[in-house]
Amino acid sequence: VHYADRLAQASHAKGSVLCVGLDPMPDQLPDCPGSDLIARVEYFCTAILEAVAPHAVAVKPQSAYFEALAPEGLACLWRLVRYARDLGLLVIMDAKRGDIGSTAAAYARATLGLHVGDGQPLADAVTVAPYLGRDGVQPFIEMAANYETGLYVLVKTSNPGSGELQDLTLASGLTVYEHMGDLVAGWGSELVGESGYSAVGAVVGATYPAQLAALRHRLPTVPFLIPGYGHQGGTATDVAAGFDARGQGAVVNSARGIIYAWQAHQQPFATAAAEAAQQAREELQAALPGP
Amino acid sequence: VHYADRLAQASHAKGSVLCVGLDPMPDQLPDCPGSDLIARVEYFCTAILEAVAPHAVAVKPQSAYFEALAPEGLACLWRLVRYARDLGLLVIMDAKRGDIGSTAAAYARATLGLHVGDGQPLADAVTVAPYLGRDGVQPFIEMAANYETGLYVLVKTSNPGSGELQDLTLASGLTVYEHMGDLVAGWGSELVGESGYSAVGAVVGATYPAQLAALRHRLPTVPFLIPGYGHQGGTATDVAAGFDARGQGAVVNSARGIIYAWQAHQQPFATAAAEAAQQAREELQAALPGP
Repeated sequence: VHYADRLAQASHAKGSVLCVGLDPMPDQLPDCPGSDLIARVEYFCTAILEAVAPHAVAVKPQSAYFEALAPEGLACLWRLVRYARDLGLLVIMDAKRGDIGSTAAAYARATLGLHVGDGQPLADAVTVAPYLGRDGVQPFIEMAANYETGLYVLVKTSNPGSGELQDLTLASGLTVYEHMGDLVAGWGSELVGESGYSAVGAVVGATYPAQLAALRHRLPTVPFLIPGYGHQGGTATDVAAGFDARGQGAVVNSARGIIYAWQAHQQPFATAAAEAAQQAREELQAALPGP
Repeated sequence: VHYADRLAQASHAKGSVLCVGLDPMPDQLPDCPGSDLIARVEYFCTAILEAVAPHAVAVKPQSAYFEALAPEGLACLWRLVRYARDLGLLVIMDAKRGDIGSTAAAYARATLGLHVGDGQPLADAVTVAPYLGRDGVQPFIEMAANYETGLYVLVKTSNPGSGELQDLTLASGLTVYEHMGDLVAGWGSELVGESGYSAVGAVVGATYPAQLAALRHRLPTVPFLIPGYGHQGGTATDVAAGFDARGQGAVVNSARGIIYAWQAHQQPFATAAAEAAQQAREELQAALPGP
């Protein structure tokens, strides 16, 4: 099944547009059993996956935190990806890769888990950086066409400094992020599924709600991955602008507000994560446009 | 020793500005002993390192090809990095990472090998993607300040489609890549070493020699990593424009033209690589400005 359709179906079936970010920062972990840091990270992430599975449609592992745990950290990452799939969650690998030609093809295989997946990718989608132009994105698009995976290209990111490049005005009158959004729509125009959305999506942050709303209008076939909800400051009302009139076309990521909810609530971490995920799911559903 | 000074000293001592790209593409490898692909890649890369060590000042492993070999591929990569250092080569990790905050810090640790390096990074420098703005580059700059490492930010890349974003003209009259180059110069202004070059460098391709020359003039404190020489079409005369009047300020990468030289020359692959590296070194030295 086409990535965007798979996501739309899962989102509808579960009544959720929530994606939970799996960002296991060593200095933020609760007390977990395990003989070393990787074992503790795996224990933590496994419990988080189980806690959020009823409430989230997808999870977004942040590859960096696993890469920083030496090569064994990556083996842990792929065990967690398999387990997330077993729990019925879609997996968006947050890797922000970008290179060219056969190098980008190698990154597509690596980040989607084709190298560990017995002939099929393990992750459903991956984030991609666009500075190199289409050359850097093309192998991910080919992967999407051949394996029903998806990709989300960075367009307007949620960080405070995102405007340093992305908000610059071009001679054409467009901003860099608007131009990039148009390129992304073009790159994905031949991969639009039955849901009306392409397998080629865009990362658009919740922290810039006016730009999010304008991009939703401008790019009707581009699905959005919306970071910045919760801890970073984006509200449910802010992110609702990233959805179409039917309440479709995006997933909303929250990481710290869910996986580290225990820090604020004096609860066991998995209980706190489950409650925070349920609350986020409901808050988002209530704010979405549509029936 | 400051990264740019370390590179300048090694380059002077060896009489070489050549960096050899370590891009072990599975379908391009010669016949190598080994029970599996990782063993064959390690055999191949080890022999290449030994062959080019007398002629190159640095090597640039392409992280993607190791990541695509499952987690064990990364363990192989770091063994090769250690061996390259033992052979007196500097190591520029080509990873093109870019993320924000603590995620970017995790990438800096992972790509420079702090996680496997017993308290010190194993690689000397890393390539970084700039679409997120300074937020995405800052942790790599802090790493440079704290550990004497370097970074090369993508500015004007060597691929055919690089212009799709990088060549756009801004309302200011500058192109995106000129603006990015100015940002990179500013980000690195407090990390200029005795050589006159910063630890914060730029990737500028040999395949656009006019832009390379203009950027050299525009960014006098920014060291360049110049890909695109050899196989991709950049000549020694083209890349010479990336150096200052003393013949300093850049390293020039060649991958396929050296590591796969055996395909054209019907020689054992290590012999062919050694001869191609020697020839590239001499060709570059002859073309450089200065005494």
